[in-house]
Amino acid sequence: MLFSRALLTTVKEAPADAANASHLLLTRAGFIRRVGAGMYDFLPLGLRVLHKITRIVREEMDRSGALEVLMPALLPAEYYKESGRWDGFGDTLFRLKDRKGSDLHLGPTHEEIVTDIARREIRSYRDMPKNLYQIQTKFRDEPRPRGGLLRTREFLMKDAYSFDTTEQAALASFERMRVAYCRIFDRLGLMYRMVAADSGAMGGSMSAEFQALVESGEDAIVACDTCDYAANVEIATVQSSPSAQDIALEPTQRVHTPGQGTIDEVTAFLGIAPAQMPKSLLYVGEHGEIVMVVVRGDHAVNEVLLARALGVAEVSLATEADVKKATGAAVGFAGPTTFQGRIVVDRAASHVRNGVVGGNETDYHITGVNYGRDFTGDIVDVRLAATGDPCSRCEGGKLASYRGIEAGHIFVLGTHYSTKMGAMFSDERQESHPIWMGCYGIGVSRLVATVIEQHHDDNGMRWPNAIAPYDVYIVTVGKDAPVLEAARKLHDALEERGIEVLWDDRDERPGVKFKDADLIGIPWRVTLGAKALATGNVELKARSEPDPKKVELIPVASAVETLRARIRA
Amino acid sequence: MLFSRALLTTVKEAPADAANASHLLLTRAGFIRRVGAGMYDFLPLGLRVLHKITRIVREEMDRSGALEVLMPALLPAEYYKESGRWDGFGDTLFRLKDRKGSDLHLGPTHEEIVTDIARREIRSYRDMPKNLYQIQTKFRDEPRPRGGLLRTREFLMKDAYSFDTTEQAALASFERMRVAYCRIFDRLGLMYRMVAADSGAMGGSMSAEFQALVESGEDAIVACDTCDYAANVEIATVQSSPSAQDIALEPTQRVHTPGQGTIDEVTAFLGIAPAQMPKSLLYVGEHGEIVMVVVRGDHAVNEVLLARALGVAEVSLATEADVKKATGAAVGFAGPTTFQGRIVVDRAASHVRNGVVGGNETDYHITGVNYGRDFTGDIVDVRLAATGDPCSRCEGGKLASYRGIEAGHIFVLGTHYSTKMGAMFSDERQESHPIWMGCYGIGVSRLVATVIEQHHDDNGMRWPNAIAPYDVYIVTVGKDAPVLEAARKLHDALEERGIEVLWDDRDERPGVKFKDADLIGIPWRVTLGAKALATGNVELKARSEPDPKKVELIPVASAVETLRARIRA
Repeated sequence: MLFSRALLTTVKEAPADAANASHLLLTRAGFIRRVGAGMYDFLPLGLRVLHKITRIVREEMDRSGALEVLMPALLPAEYYKESGRWDGFGDTLFRLKDRKGSDLHLGPTHEEIVTDIARREIRSYRDMPKNLYQIQTKFRDEPRPRGGLLRTREFLMKDAYSFDTTEQAALASFERMRVAYCRIFDRLGLMYRMVAADSGAMGGSMSAEFQALVESGEDAIVACDTCDYAANVEIATVQSSPSAQDIALEPTQRVHTPGQGTIDEVTAFLGIAPAQMPKSLLYVGEHGEIVMVVVRGDHAVNEVLLARALGVAEVSLATEADVKKATGAAVGFAGPTTFQGRIVVDRAASHVRNGVVGGNETDYHITGVNYGRDFTGDIVDVRLAATGDPCSRCEGGKLASYRGIEAGHIFVLGTHYSTKMGAMFSDERQESHPIWMGCYGIGVSRLVATVIEQHHDDNGMRWPNAIAPYDVYIVTVGKDAPVLEAARKLHDALEERGIEVLWDDRDERPGVKFKDADLIGIPWRVTLGAKALATGNVELKARSEPDPKKVELIPVASAVETLRARIRA
Repeated sequence: MLFSRALLTTVKEAPADAANASHLLLTRAGFIRRVGAGMYDFLPLGLRVLHKITRIVREEMDRSGALEVLMPALLPAEYYKESGRWDGFGDTLFRLKDRKGSDLHLGPTHEEIVTDIARREIRSYRDMPKNLYQIQTKFRDEPRPRGGLLRTREFLMKDAYSFDTTEQAALASFERMRVAYCRIFDRLGLMYRMVAADSGAMGGSMSAEFQALVESGEDAIVACDTCDYAANVEIATVQSSPSAQDIALEPTQRVHTPGQGTIDEVTAFLGIAPAQMPKSLLYVGEHGEIVMVVVRGDHAVNEVLLARALGVAEVSLATEADVKKATGAAVGFAGPTTFQGRIVVDRAASHVRNGVVGGNETDYHITGVNYGRDFTGDIVDVRLAATGDPCSRCEGGKLASYRGIEAGHIFVLGTHYSTKMGAMFSDERQESHPIWMGCYGIGVSRLVATVIEQHHDDNGMRWPNAIAPYDVYIVTVGKDAPVLEAARKLHDALEERGIEVLWDDRDERPGVKFKDADLIGIPWRVTLGAKALATGNVELKARSEPDPKKVELIPVASAVETLRARIRA
């Protein structure tokens, strides 16, 4: 392919909203163009990468024994109404009406539709295990599309759904997908970690994420430095056993703390450590109930764990007005000792001796407060895990924090959808049972960006061989006929051998071409100039080689074979 | 692939709404399942066919030099507002709002979006010619989705857009696409004809359809039996030269025709031929103007040609009330002699001598009416072409009628979109001009059904080799271990050679398997039974062989090579 024919316009300006390397570089290199908020064109080079990733995903799904299908993206409302997600999905669901006024929506994920296939096509235990997958455009009205391809409103997804007769068989399907996902992410050259995760709107019972480790990633992960525990911080638990405490309990005392409403203010004012100050936060559950949550002053609340502890789907902080109404005091002075309502206490907060809490009276706190004696409440694990926290799974392990981008997510769904929608099978004795389901997602278009978040430097992208838009980038220096002739021969010889090549045939200075070669990030660059060619040589440089001067002279006569060997290495 | 693993459920019942062979057979054979009106799941076998068709389309587009891109399916309204199609597309556009209330729509076609790419990426005459294509899911809120995959609300489309500096260059791009389309449809084994067509909502200046010839097709086509003129009947013109007429003009006369309001009634009542009776129809144009259209009683009005003649996008018949108001008479008695308003007269009707027309008075007609003397109006060509009509392009040719399914459509768009949206280029003298565009569509998912409309018999589908879901269908008779062992060996050997094979391993009678083999329509069937195997043979039958008893005994030892040769033939 000639650069001049490739619809390839590199640009110097960064997109105004680019906060990520991949967004910046994919745009500057002409791989993608923004059409609207969270909507992108894939230009030819970007689409080549997307297709290569798609092919790897498809190959590994096929290898796992899954069967490819294709469900509609535009769906009648009836299926989501059947499962309860027509309302449950909230504003993220793109809803519309057709010309007859019927409710339709765009598919954000396809559990209902595939369950409908299952209830029609799967009848007997003999029909399972089955795994149906599709590679399809999905639509979600994200509240904040951002990061270029990292969070879009339209994206390419691989979603797979397994169907089994028993929980044990469902776990075997889950394991097959785990293996397939590892193979996929390995082939893409990703550094990743599988972590325990929240199942969110999927309604599952077991769930793991494949997190690509990236400093700018939006997901926080903790992993133990000793055992193999790793989890999205949303659901990570930490060990909160009491340290041996031989401390005499003091009496409580009401102290005047005028205008000292934050942890920082109170601890500074009273000269104590934040760990000494159980803080009381008021939350509203789904049904409007106000709950006081007590965590240590140096800890944060994990709202996912809190919601689980309260048995609701979501919690939110109470408004200032609600706080005043519930405590009789300004925000900053709530406390458990005299609170009239439900209290939940994080295990670590319950271990604090002679702590300081709000007095439910503006400008007053209480000191010498101890759980059990001065207040009570349900003990739960709701603190947000952080670096240095003790691992909840092993003795002595400490948690370390990472940031990641969710590259894949696998769930055991159980019989939630099959029960709701009547996807039943007959067992050996002709008895009817709901099918055990699992679901497995990979954001395929997001991977284009995720790979670049891990594979780039200051000069541009560095595509792994397996998914590079082209294998070789030819730079011709000058316009001498022998140079152009040699380039054309090399270009054609490479194409004949199935090696994909982009020839920068533009009438530009070598410096401009080298800069664009680095930006576009094709793994191998071959430079043809009159001087080296006179001795029968061309210059070879790997994009992964950081030193721009470190080029290798190779004979033009064997260049095809040399490149072939390097690409396959 | 084993039948038992393939998610393949053949069903005996036809879908309630199946009016087409492809709808019936694709559903019965488990290739597709209905999800909603005009929305279908592709099950594994159907998707295999769709993928093979997609690959052929992609290969031929790439071979033509077009570049593949991928634009969003979900689009902000701004682009269609810029072109005027936000309103112009009518109810067929799926419109929706996002969580912020912004207008969005689903892409029915992508002229605006690709023009936006062009105005950003194409700057100079040196950047052209370019042809950008995508293979993408499209959405149209069809008034009447029908025919299974033939007319759906979501479908896979290949849409390509060419960009050129001049009209001549645009015509060269059009020609390249014509060649590519012929190659595609040839490879798919379609019988088709390229015909002149209306450019409809695309706003183009030159347009041709590739019509797959199918008796049940929804498009009517006429083609000359002498020259190569062929056109969609929507825009087909016929020759209407006056036959030599040496007939004396009679005086007009008002005649009482009580209750005789139709052509049949009046001609029977007066004992004249329908060709002798110019009929007057009242139409309403876009701006509400009532126009009288006079065509011969044995001719029909072509509303596409009429709209063009009137310079409006659409016309519709006037209501009964409008007719009464405009003529002062009941429906059936309108006529041009005393009509107060615009009259257009089809050329053939203007040649009628001493004709009979309505009197604009209930129960009265006028006889002896002649164009020029008794009424006047703009002479236009607006009659619907029909079998036997004289060709408008050659001397002596007669039109024959066909029915077809539109398989592809190619347009020269001109500079309509580039002018509206400012997609300009600089020529050699740095002067700025709008880019010449063309657009080229193939309904990829519709082709799955179109092929079957041409390739089926009473027993099921007959897939051409190039797009069959599998190459070979193995039937094992009985469950004898040597038979199953031989089948497994053959199955594995075929797969190793890259031959796709579906083994019907079900515990069913041979008759059931043969019936399903015919229904599914894989090109080659190999039957393994104990008796033939004892002599080292298996049975081979082509799906295209109509006689069910005409099977061939071939040695199992060379079965792989035999099949390989047949598939490649």
